[in-house]
Amino acid sequence: MISDQTHMRRCLTLAKTAIGKTAPNPLVGSVIVQGDEIVGQGFHPQAGQPHGEIFALWEAGDRAKGATLYVNLEPCNHQGRTPPCTEAIIQAGIAKVVVGMVDPNPLVAGKGISRLRQAGIEVKVGVEEEACQRLNEAFCFRIKHQRPFGIFKYAMTLDGKIATAQAHSSWVTSSSARHWVHQLRSQCQAVIIGGNTVRRDNPLLTNHGVGEVNPLRVVLSRSLDLPIEAQLWDQDVAKTLVITEKTCDRNTLSHLEKLEVETLVLEQLTPLAVMEELYQRNCLQVLWECGGILAAEAIAMGTVQKVHAFLAPKIIGGVAAPTPVGELGFQQMTQALNLTDLHCQAIGPDWLFTGYLCGNDDNGQSNI
Amino acid sequence: MISDQTHMRRCLTLAKTAIGKTAPNPLVGSVIVQGDEIVGQGFHPQAGQPHGEIFALWEAGDRAKGATLYVNLEPCNHQGRTPPCTEAIIQAGIAKVVVGMVDPNPLVAGKGISRLRQAGIEVKVGVEEEACQRLNEAFCFRIKHQRPFGIFKYAMTLDGKIATAQAHSSWVTSSSARHWVHQLRSQCQAVIIGGNTVRRDNPLLTNHGVGEVNPLRVVLSRSLDLPIEAQLWDQDVAKTLVITEKTCDRNTLSHLEKLEVETLVLEQLTPLAVMEELYQRNCLQVLWECGGILAAEAIAMGTVQKVHAFLAPKIIGGVAAPTPVGELGFQQMTQALNLTDLHCQAIGPDWLFTGYLCGNDDNGQSNI
Repeated sequence: MISDQTHMRRCLTLAKTAIGKTAPNPLVGSVIVQGDEIVGQGFHPQAGQPHGEIFALWEAGDRAKGATLYVNLEPCNHQGRTPPCTEAIIQAGIAKVVVGMVDPNPLVAGKGISRLRQAGIEVKVGVEEEACQRLNEAFCFRIKHQRPFGIFKYAMTLDGKIATAQAHSSWVTSSSARHWVHQLRSQCQAVIIGGNTVRRDNPLLTNHGVGEVNPLRVVLSRSLDLPIEAQLWDQDVAKTLVITEKTCDRNTLSHLEKLEVETLVLEQLTPLAVMEELYQRNCLQVLWECGGILAAEAIAMGTVQKVHAFLAPKIIGGVAAPTPVGELGFQQMTQALNLTDLHCQAIGPDWLFTGYLCGNDDNGQSNI
Repeated sequence: MISDQTHMRRCLTLAKTAIGKTAPNPLVGSVIVQGDEIVGQGFHPQAGQPHGEIFALWEAGDRAKGATLYVNLEPCNHQGRTPPCTEAIIQAGIAKVVVGMVDPNPLVAGKGISRLRQAGIEVKVGVEEEACQRLNEAFCFRIKHQRPFGIFKYAMTLDGKIATAQAHSSWVTSSSARHWVHQLRSQCQAVIIGGNTVRRDNPLLTNHGVGEVNPLRVVLSRSLDLPIEAQLWDQDVAKTLVITEKTCDRNTLSHLEKLEVETLVLEQLTPLAVMEELYQRNCLQVLWECGGILAAEAIAMGTVQKVHAFLAPKIIGGVAAPTPVGELGFQQMTQALNLTDLHCQAIGPDWLFTGYLCGNDDNGQSNI
């Protein structure tokens, strides 16, 4: 007998097929099993499309009757852009449903499970729950805090520098690491940098063909002291949004508008205000690829939940060389922000550390 | 039949028993085998004591006749503080000698092997050679360059800082990592810091009881702008050597002398001059535990061969917070010094990267 865990892991694998494409919806995969035989499977491909369970039911057809349905996230019980999954499951005659985790969406939040049980279906909840939570960490955070999940990625030398004192930074890491970052971008709906990075690096910020959709490229600049020409102003390759404040340079503003670069003038430009805007734009996860000054602001405001830190096997030195995180105002080492679940993996010759900023997932509040 | 590799690894294990105690001599272990039976084994415990082969021969006694002797380093053929090992091996009637690596000491350098072969003994060279070279990397470097092997150890946060902007650094890493450093100190004959570290951290720099012998604690200070009271001035716990220049503060110099802290006034205080002094004092490996300014000087002068970098799972921020390596004068990221054989291990909640500064082992020359 194949275990519930095995079937649930299959759901997760299916769900991941659509990684980066479902925003603001979660990643959902589903498997329908008769005995040990998989009779149907599916995943949620993108917002507006049917949920994973529906594809699995379609594939199973009549064989869904009396079968067990596995799904990594609680089936919905509400009419959204698609009809409720619970009704489809009931109508198909499914005998048992195994759910990875309860849907944190207040519109669902256990109601889907209740509805199935009311209809006489046996429901088991919490199989491979940690892996299910992890897969949809961005969705869970977004639902809970009405903000996108913030990821801060940086690349530094073994002596902690992200560039030379002259701001030269190409390249800290190897092409393997940069390819990994392109993949990460393809899983994010927006990538944020500050004016400094535009001026110094003139980055492209696309996924370099790794994924189907490029993230929205977001530039934060209070002054709009930005170059007249930049790769980011080319809107054919990907879209760019420049966010600024009322006191900005109006000439640059109209220059950008002429180039058809979208601009947004906020009362006060803060990482939180930016994340609120990106939430409205259905962003699920947002990648901070900025320098240390903006990164410190983003961290201090609680808009960074996860950290990807690349470490390159080299020493560059430089008293004035920039480091990944600027001023947080801490005077004692004991005040440092801890990272949890930090793990390390080799990516080509470089090392990638991935972890979570403590306290953030619980309260999404400011860190300082 | 037990393999040559297995016996050689046993030699290495025996040799390691004396780690930190043999300076300036190498770590040597030896095993004597009749068929598959080990009839004698030994290691070199410290300079002035017999070599590893001799202890193994003593234990084997008559059973050395016709046996195979394994040793990780070529047996010596010269009269040092002890008689040549080759003669003892020949006299004992050993039939075959398996050598891990040729001794780079010009006094030996193949002559030991030649002597054994002349005497009709079969000699096999190069078993587990890489591991043998690694174990005695400090000895090999010292012999080749007439300087101690330099190790640079530092501990930084995941955002590349070794302290806060206010120079507060207790503690970046966990007690497990600090215990690991105490062990490392017990394997070094000297530990070097600069005046900044004395002023800011007032460190003890002992092995905290982990090893039998404390390293010589070396303070480099051109000005001798040092505190009147410091843990390092207590000579009962361990010895301290303060190295300065002629232009130093003479009051501090006589204060230190009154406290019976050894002082040395150099024409010009450079990392290289310090390493030459420590070579004369029979140091095999020397640990740089200094801040970024001195570390950069040490690296630039080619006095750092190996790097141990601890990474703590925390973010401290700070635009003015110090980083592990100060000015190396590099303007482009492509100029960075590469580390080879970098590997990563978890030490408690922290991560330790160990690698070698490229080019250094070959030429021991300046890096810049």
